[in-house]
Amino acid sequence: MRLLNYNLFGESHGKAIGVVIRGVPPGIEVREGELTAELERRKGIRRFATKRKEEDRPVILSGVFRGHTTGTPIAVVVENRDVESSYYEEIKDTPRPGHGDYPARIKYFGYNDYRGGGHLSGRLTVGIVVAGYFAKKILERFGIEVRAYIKRIGPVEARELSVEEVFSSENPYCPDEEAFGEMREVMEDARKSGDSVGGIVEAVARNVPAGLGGPYEEDIEADLASAFFRIPAVKGVEFGLGFRFGELRGSEANDPFIIRNGKVVTETNNHGGFLGGMTTGMPIVARVVIKPTPSIYLPQRTVNIGEMREEWIRLRGRFDSCIVPKALPVVEGAMAIVLADHLLRRMAWVGFENAR
Amino acid sequence: MRLLNYNLFGESHGKAIGVVIRGVPPGIEVREGELTAELERRKGIRRFATKRKEEDRPVILSGVFRGHTTGTPIAVVVENRDVESSYYEEIKDTPRPGHGDYPARIKYFGYNDYRGGGHLSGRLTVGIVVAGYFAKKILERFGIEVRAYIKRIGPVEARELSVEEVFSSENPYCPDEEAFGEMREVMEDARKSGDSVGGIVEAVARNVPAGLGGPYEEDIEADLASAFFRIPAVKGVEFGLGFRFGELRGSEANDPFIIRNGKVVTETNNHGGFLGGMTTGMPIVARVVIKPTPSIYLPQRTVNIGEMREEWIRLRGRFDSCIVPKALPVVEGAMAIVLADHLLRRMAWVGFENAR
Amino acid sequence: MRLLNYNLFGESHGKAIGVVIRGVPPGIEVREGELTAELERRKGIRRFATKRKEEDRPVILSGVFRGHTTGTPIAVVVENRDVESSYYEEIKDTPRPGHGDYPARIKYFGYNDYRGGGHLSGRLTVGIVVAGYFAKKILERFGIEVRAYIKRIGPVEARELSVEEVFSSENPYCPDEEAFGEMREVMEDARKSGDSVGGIVEAVARNVPAGLGGPYEEDIEADLASAFFRIPAVKGVEFGLGFRFGELRGSEANDPFIIRNGKVVTETNNHGGFLGGMTTGMPIVARVVIKPTPSIYLPQRTVNIGEMREEWIRLRGRFDSCIVPKALPVVEGAMAIVLADHLLRRMAWVGFENAR
Amino acid sequence: MRLLNYNLFGESHGKAIGVVIRGVPPGIEVREGELTAELERRKGIRRFATKRKEEDRPVILSGVFRGHTTGTPIAVVVENRDVESSYYEEIKDTPRPGHGDYPARIKYFGYNDYRGGGHLSGRLTVGIVVAGYFAKKILERFGIEVRAYIKRIGPVEARELSVEEVFSSENPYCPDEEAFGEMREVMEDARKSGDSVGGIVEAVARNVPAGLGGPYEEDIEADLASAFFRIPAVKGVEFGLGFRFGELRGSEANDPFIIRNGKVVTETNNHGGFLGGMTTGMPIVARVVIKPTPSIYLPQRTVNIGEMREEWIRLRGRFDSCIVPKALPVVEGAMAIVLADHLLRRMAWVGFENAR
Repeated sequence: MRLLNYNLFGESHGKAIGVVIRGVPPGIEVREGELTAELERRKGIRRFATKRKEEDRPVILSGVFRGHTTGTPIAVVVENRDVESSYYEEIKDTPRPGHGDYPARIKYFGYNDYRGGGHLSGRLTVGIVVAGYFAKKILERFGIEVRAYIKRIGPVEARELSVEEVFSSENPYCPDEEAFGEMREVMEDARKSGDSVGGIVEAVARNVPAGLGGPYEEDIEADLASAFFRIPAVKGVEFGLGFRFGELRGSEANDPFIIRNGKVVTETNNHGGFLGGMTTGMPIVARVVIKPTPSIYLPQRTVNIGEMREEWIRLRGRFDSCIVPKALPVVEGAMAIVLADHLLRRMAWVGFENAR
Repeated sequence: MRLLNYNLFGESHGKAIGVVIRGVPPGIEVREGELTAELERRKGIRRFATKRKEEDRPVILSGVFRGHTTGTPIAVVVENRDVESSYYEEIKDTPRPGHGDYPARIKYFGYNDYRGGGHLSGRLTVGIVVAGYFAKKILERFGIEVRAYIKRIGPVEARELSVEEVFSSENPYCPDEEAFGEMREVMEDARKSGDSVGGIVEAVARNVPAGLGGPYEEDIEADLASAFFRIPAVKGVEFGLGFRFGELRGSEANDPFIIRNGKVVTETNNHGGFLGGMTTGMPIVARVVIKPTPSIYLPQRTVNIGEMREEWIRLRGRFDSCIVPKALPVVEGAMAIVLADHLLRRMAWVGFENAR
Repeated sequence: MRLLNYNLFGESHGKAIGVVIRGVPPGIEVREGELTAELERRKGIRRFATKRKEEDRPVILSGVFRGHTTGTPIAVVVENRDVESSYYEEIKDTPRPGHGDYPARIKYFGYNDYRGGGHLSGRLTVGIVVAGYFAKKILERFGIEVRAYIKRIGPVEARELSVEEVFSSENPYCPDEEAFGEMREVMEDARKSGDSVGGIVEAVARNVPAGLGGPYEEDIEADLASAFFRIPAVKGVEFGLGFRFGELRGSEANDPFIIRNGKVVTETNNHGGFLGGMTTGMPIVARVVIKPTPSIYLPQRTVNIGEMREEWIRLRGRFDSCIVPKALPVVEGAMAIVLADHLLRRMAWVGFENAR
Repeated sequence: MRLLNYNLFGESHGKAIGVVIRGVPPGIEVREGELTAELERRKGIRRFATKRKEEDRPVILSGVFRGHTTGTPIAVVVENRDVESSYYEEIKDTPRPGHGDYPARIKYFGYNDYRGGGHLSGRLTVGIVVAGYFAKKILERFGIEVRAYIKRIGPVEARELSVEEVFSSENPYCPDEEAFGEMREVMEDARKSGDSVGGIVEAVARNVPAGLGGPYEEDIEADLASAFFRIPAVKGVEFGLGFRFGELRGSEANDPFIIRNGKVVTETNNHGGFLGGMTTGMPIVARVVIKPTPSIYLPQRTVNIGEMREEWIRLRGRFDSCIVPKALPVVEGAMAIVLADHLLRRMAWVGFENAR
């Protein structure tokens, strides 16, 4: 049913990773500088990110002609360089705790490329950012904007922020500068102790028209959740008040409808932009929890599967101490893709209705 | 890519609601009594549920022959009776706060059946329970079990429960009898004050083999989240520690691999059964928040869309004061469908591997 | 990628057969009389069709409200009556030549409902006609028309007919009255000798805009072929000159572009409306071969699978001597569904392009 | 529902073309030499094929590790070299008769890469051959073989050939050596006169188990037809007797079931391997008509769309005089992909059935 699709391919230590995006309409202006800038964001905050000198130079193989999308599949490839795989040979029989090594070995009957996590690597999210770039361009034509920021790092949570504050902030990570200062300290602490730390990303979209999505099968909230959960390390997704709804009464939870500037809106936005699986025209507010990246320098217990005995491992390599900053453009990309897809679908019906 | 699918149809006050399930393998014994019993569970706790005398008599139209599934599409229909629609004519221009009335009106250009929520009605979840019944039968052949219980109602949360406690409990709603007593009081309070109350459902699955799902596109965690979010009123989904991961360090979050009874398992189950989008063989633990049902007897503010003016409405009719108990078989059904689908897919590869 | 879908369910001798159609836009006026009339056509020419007093009374269970489509799934059910199954018990171990009995037994591990062909029955095409009814309504809004007629019965072929002749003919079976007279004789001969006879249906569509479909994955010719082949007894599909292209040179096959009434058209229509997997704006011309219905009264050789020995069977029951007349609304329905789906998809891009 | 998928990308004169194949199971040995050999076949008979020195060096970017498939998406890219595009600037406003230039211009609102046909180019079929290579490897494990040969070139048709003759022939194009000699002459004539010529490919598969596919939605015949029609220039597909069924009576068409070597088979194979949308265990016989390639050196009439006037064009460049030989590995690939997909799906049910 989707009109906009993407498929990722590649392994962390293979020749290249990439993405094929299908369904992007023709005539969208593409600027490679913008695309590179988006990918640059995915590297996160240098201090807390892996030192891999990923150049992440995206090469557009197809679907763009003379600076515009053509309407045909867009393939974008990023070569893997600066790859050092020998260490992964050492640990291939000892699955890293918190990583997908163990189930992958079973799923792929031992044939998977285990180096750097192979196809499970977070590096594949480059493709989501690339697809998100095109999706944002689709949304842009309708004035729809998407923005993600860090809501929490470990114990530090940003204060409640208005949608306007989120979109007008110049801090690329968190509009609450004070909280962000503390978040940096938490990340620094984790880094110093050879550990990592988790966090929460909040993603907001504005100017989304009412009526996207639908009940059950067409539920756009479900499609967004699905897209978010496909990002590695995501372990929870909520919209609006989210899990706090479980503590509330209906009289506290329901958002009254009112008229503002001649438009039907809700006075509050507990629902986070969705009712009945559909957008209401109110801002979309989603929260996504990112578990602490499992690669840490501390000794951990695991099992040597070849020899079936328990042992300790101590990982070596270049690890992020916090992947939450990196996740921002990925979360935005995932959101933009779903919104753009539903927007395109919506236009089919609007076109039909207008043809009366 | 799915091998097991279902599609819901119907409106709350139309002729019937139903479901078509495709991909159920042949030869599964079907007992109508069992199916009716599952649907009976969906009525929740009589005291806190609508008084609609839904008989919910499922009629199997196809796909079952001489007491066994045939392998062809299974259509199950439930007639709508005891329906009183006149009230909905009164309020059709005043969208009920917290319901999907308003975005539905826009999406469907005013052509939708607004009576009782139409196709958005929670009544459609009957179809999920029916599909879930067949999915559980598929899982049963592999010893896989699924069970959902109430984790929270308003301020009351059940204590931490072991997987064994969950499966061995005879209380159909919550294994923590003490907490359940308090939950009943909270629901009773809500009922008495003409209000409603939200809650959290925890769903657990055991004996799920490792290696179902996969990274990114094949992510089974994402497929489960997607299925859960398609249930009306769900506003958040998390697995394992879920949102608490945002507060933790990697050294606290990672589950060590150990050997128990000659099998690789994790010592703790923070990951809730999934790593890298795949099952690990550990029990699956998912939590789903259900917002308080928006239909309440208290006066609420809304907008008369026909006349574009704000007004107060006071809903009449038969409302649940808490839909969380009703949600249990629906959440189980949604989970069972996704697990059974991935299990069937998995068997394709296993069959291929074994054909060497 | 499809925006318009249908799923069939039911068995020939089960409780009911039916269809669920998803993606029909809201606001289409539905007249049950029209729908019944379409289904009436599917009964073919009484003399050459089964005597089963199929009333085929379609009951719309959902998706239509106050005479208009709502935009939600449309479920339509037809009860099975006048069913006599005892004979099928006798022959359940002796697969009927030319029928799917044998592979069905293997596919479904013996659990399928074999009575009257079960889910394989041509009776299921009622659902295609129903879905086709809604699809034609979508096309109607854009002035697109679809019409199928009998091109051949056994040795008799209708003469070359212009698109105008096809659409203006009042003969519901074949615009070439003379040929149709001979076709009747061929069908009568087959009937008298207890045999059946095959034929070819030609389906034509006009006023289809250029630019529907696309290369490879989006190929509308392929989607049409796929839809046609899903109709039982179809063993070949061709467009435009079809198999005659194999005998030609490029200079004979290519259609020159010319300008007529200020529009780009082709002078000839060898291509049958498609170039590069896309519509050209020229009339669509498709031909579909229908094999003679395998149920005949003559003795035939088969195998008793239970006892694994060869034997002769002589079928009893009510058989069509020619199903080609019956196939006309089914072929039209299949074509209309694919065209309407691609038209809806097209509107998404047109809406996006117009939003500049 | 598919377990095996492929997506093509690229434009004829862009950076590269390629394919991403998803669902190939792990552990299949991959030999680059074999893959190159398959692609070599796609170049056809040098004398009648374009002189483009397509090296077609496939680069496997992902999904293969240490000589075996990993189970993750396989991306294969072929760079475009030896490309001369300037001529296409000259003719970009004059759509070539028989090509998709005109509808593509409309579909893509003028943004498509028109050079060398862009994404419509037959060059993209490299991706089908690559996907077919992996599909054949899946089939190989079950002893299933696929082979396509030239059945007709212009007026010359190969004689009726047994399945054994087809598979044992050493002629890579046509087992009927005599007919093949005449076919070469027809191609030579077309070449000399600056024209092109069409033909028919017959594709045969043996050792396919009974019970793949299913009625209606699961129809494997329809899936094959769909795959064949996605190959450019295909205008017709038939199975078994195909269009000749239209001339026959049931008593002539039905294949009697008999027992041979303790197995149920049919005495004749008019049905071409399919009954009721399912495989019967008999050899699959499909015929695909390939229209004469529309690029010819003779003057042709077309329309200058920019200036909206009729004119004559005379194409320059390197054209195939006959693409039928080139089509053989493409048709085989398309067939292998569909068979392998259905085989994998089948194994899910077999695995379930065996788990009793």
